[in-house]
Amino acid sequence: MSDTVQRFYEKCRFIHDLNEVQQLMEWDQQVMMPRKGSDQRGYQQAALAAVAHAKLTDPEVGDLIAELSQKKDTSVDLAADVREAKRAYDRAVKVPARLVTERARVCSLAQVAWEGAKGANDFASFRPHLEAVLKVTREIAHAVGGGGSAYDALLDEYEPGMTEASLKVTFGDLRDRLVKLLGKLQGSSHKPSQAPVKRHFPKDAQVAFGLKVIADMGYDMQAGRLDVSAHPFTNGTMGDVRITTRYSEDFLNMALFGTMHEAGHALYEQGLDPERYRDPAGGFCSMGIHESQSRFWENMIGRSRPFWKRYYPELRKAFPGVLDDVTEDAFYGAINVVQPSLVRVEADEVTYNLHIILRFELESALLADQLQAEDLPAAWNEKVKSFLGIVPPTDREGVLQDVHWSAGLFGYFPTYALGNLYAAQFAEALRRDLPDLDARVAAGELKDIKAWLNKNIHHQGRRYLAQDLCAKVTGKPLSADPADRYLTAKFSEVYGI
Amino acid sequence: MSDTVQRFYEKCRFIHDLNEVQQLMEWDQQVMMPRKGSDQRGYQQAALAAVAHAKLTDPEVGDLIAELSQKKDTSVDLAADVREAKRAYDRAVKVPARLVTERARVCSLAQVAWEGAKGANDFASFRPHLEAVLKVTREIAHAVGGGGSAYDALLDEYEPGMTEASLKVTFGDLRDRLVKLLGKLQGSSHKPSQAPVKRHFPKDAQVAFGLKVIADMGYDMQAGRLDVSAHPFTNGTMGDVRITTRYSEDFLNMALFGTMHEAGHALYEQGLDPERYRDPAGGFCSMGIHESQSRFWENMIGRSRPFWKRYYPELRKAFPGVLDDVTEDAFYGAINVVQPSLVRVEADEVTYNLHIILRFELESALLADQLQAEDLPAAWNEKVKSFLGIVPPTDREGVLQDVHWSAGLFGYFPTYALGNLYAAQFAEALRRDLPDLDARVAAGELKDIKAWLNKNIHHQGRRYLAQDLCAKVTGKPLSADPADRYLTAKFSEVYGI
Repeated sequence: MSDTVQRFYEKCRFIHDLNEVQQLMEWDQQVMMPRKGSDQRGYQQAALAAVAHAKLTDPEVGDLIAELSQKKDTSVDLAADVREAKRAYDRAVKVPARLVTERARVCSLAQVAWEGAKGANDFASFRPHLEAVLKVTREIAHAVGGGGSAYDALLDEYEPGMTEASLKVTFGDLRDRLVKLLGKLQGSSHKPSQAPVKRHFPKDAQVAFGLKVIADMGYDMQAGRLDVSAHPFTNGTMGDVRITTRYSEDFLNMALFGTMHEAGHALYEQGLDPERYRDPAGGFCSMGIHESQSRFWENMIGRSRPFWKRYYPELRKAFPGVLDDVTEDAFYGAINVVQPSLVRVEADEVTYNLHIILRFELESALLADQLQAEDLPAAWNEKVKSFLGIVPPTDREGVLQDVHWSAGLFGYFPTYALGNLYAAQFAEALRRDLPDLDARVAAGELKDIKAWLNKNIHHQGRRYLAQDLCAKVTGKPLSADPADRYLTAKFSEVYGI
Repeated sequence: MSDTVQRFYEKCRFIHDLNEVQQLMEWDQQVMMPRKGSDQRGYQQAALAAVAHAKLTDPEVGDLIAELSQKKDTSVDLAADVREAKRAYDRAVKVPARLVTERARVCSLAQVAWEGAKGANDFASFRPHLEAVLKVTREIAHAVGGGGSAYDALLDEYEPGMTEASLKVTFGDLRDRLVKLLGKLQGSSHKPSQAPVKRHFPKDAQVAFGLKVIADMGYDMQAGRLDVSAHPFTNGTMGDVRITTRYSEDFLNMALFGTMHEAGHALYEQGLDPERYRDPAGGFCSMGIHESQSRFWENMIGRSRPFWKRYYPELRKAFPGVLDDVTEDAFYGAINVVQPSLVRVEADEVTYNLHIILRFELESALLADQLQAEDLPAAWNEKVKSFLGIVPPTDREGVLQDVHWSAGLFGYFPTYALGNLYAAQFAEALRRDLPDLDARVAAGELKDIKAWLNKNIHHQGRRYLAQDLCAKVTGKPLSADPADRYLTAKFSEVYGI
């Protein structure tokens, strides 16, 4: 290895290691930190952020990237590492410190304002903050540049290579098909009931059942842990990947599918290439690909018939007497009820995507200055009506429901729906390679599924951009077709149409 | 505030904040980290150490210290901050990076070798590693310099201002008196039995009782947490001070007094000046003073008659039936048995100091080249015989029992005994200010004790060096007299002599 290459990796891995520290501090804050530690945590994170930024924008890193970018005969991995190091470096040096500080300041105020506005159902008090966040976000997008739209510059942070124009086509296509499918399902006379999963499920038994399921999925408890937090999340990478969940004793779905969702994320991180996970292209591919792993396990496995053929008897045993009168078929229906609702985080597989597309269309219009903040509540309600056929009675259940915009996370929402699209497309490729997939799931043999994901997706890291990885694994560019096929087939059967 | 002063505090607080991060990572490693996260934790800590070292040795810090050191009309606090910043800066710049790396390498190997040698009772296999640690430790002491002995240079890191010569006088004095006291106690015909605390105490009830006691002590659970770890410790400062303990269902003392001990440390950290805890002289005064706080609560309160007058009925209730036949007096005796033993961490209040003095005398001789590593086991056994009247049957229970030397911690042991000396001397001053101390403890009114410690010790931080703080609080320089008075009075009564 040349000195330049060695120096390049030294610098990059150092940045990676500091990033792991920052992540761990986040986990601790959400899961372990005592209440009165918050001021100090603020100082600690600020110190780490300053150090990480200095390391990331170190001119020597820029020189190394420039030198290595000119080399012709590099390996695929080195080329990918240089590409990803350059993406991070360019972003860090292009955005002036003034804007980073301003964004932190504006978003900090906006989040407090958002909490208050949500509580008081008072969009007007949040509006000036939203406008301030939009202003600094546009400035950052402009500073990042990249030749595309402002939205493209933001999207690139979460889904490298994806464009606003491409999303408009794919999401527009998906939206029309889902609205149609939803209409059909709502017109059916055969409607499953959610009542069976709303009985009393003691927490300890939920914990034990969840641990059993994620162990069967292949989640390695020696390289992770399961805790409780207000907002479930996955944190860390490789040998230390921690997940959290939350329990409701009156609603089985929350912890069960939440835990499977996070374990799906965790399998991705635990499944990275151990030789490469500290390198710029050794980590996860994109937020959309990450979400595809969680949604695959949560929905395409966890809410499938074969899965419950295997696990329903065990579930009944775990909660003695609770489900005696509920057939496997009724239970399967109960976890697959489709029902237009106002709140994204409670949405089913069909309407969830519509919630996301709605947000994408609105934030895209806001960034392009085609929609003003003051007109946002009306635009929100209009789209909910047109997509889902219902209207939020208050902004609290409408435009004020998500934290994302107050946190400056524009361009992030699409990755949730992309996750579903990638998941469906990967699942078709998986079924091509493992034709007896359903029989395996029904027998509780999940290890080969994990091995397939490890090899085809996890181990690849960010060697390829998401769309290229998708084409490589599935033989086709990303499209709404597989998701449409999956949702139509599954829910037509559930709803008997 | 002048620009220089402001810049000085900015730099120092940044270093403090990074240090808090390093500490939190330690806590996580001991308490939460999954097994397979250890390699990554190594990288993370190395990255943090490199960053912290760079910040600490930043030439601008040196310039600021030099400039501020020349100012005449500074406040007590600024002068103390400059003095302590200088101590840390000088130490960091004087020890070359080569030695820091070499010490880390040698100690890492030595610790593995020590574990193996302890398991196999094979000092010979550890000897070359101990020699290597001694060599690099001497080089570091030489680099640090300071005008005193090599041992002084090491001691200064843990107990600023303390000297080897002074310890020899104080510890020599204490040793002779304790050996005499121990002889008297052993000659008594009235010997309490430890049997009552070796019954079965269910863990959950131990947890609840321990939480109750430390809450009464004033430990703030909103600014801390209690977890389990293999080796109990206290971690963090101010608003985030976490303690750990370990439970044995067959031995009440372990968790009960261990938890009070750590809570004593924690009260110190929670009780620092909130305006100053991030400043160079805003933290704890010395390791000896820190230990005085833990030992005070563990022994002088926790193992006192008045304390059990208040808590014994509650303890009996917490473990129904277990202590019905044990009188308060018999219980008090059971937690105050004095018995020469081979293992330091299991020692009682009287023999504990002898264990420490023994180690101090040996490591002092090793550093001064008056004792060679090969002669250490014999020298150890000889001292155990002379201090305690017993001889270790194996080196595993002798010279190989502690991790400290393999970890390069020379000069650290004395702080354990200093803690006991300071605690006894502070306790006399406390009793002077609160003459009805015993009645208060017997009534469970511990808040005024905490308030006294907060005001006189905790809030002072490192404004004064330990010896000066001691003189300020107690009116006298540190001496072995108060500890001797306390131990003689207490154990003469327990042993009826």
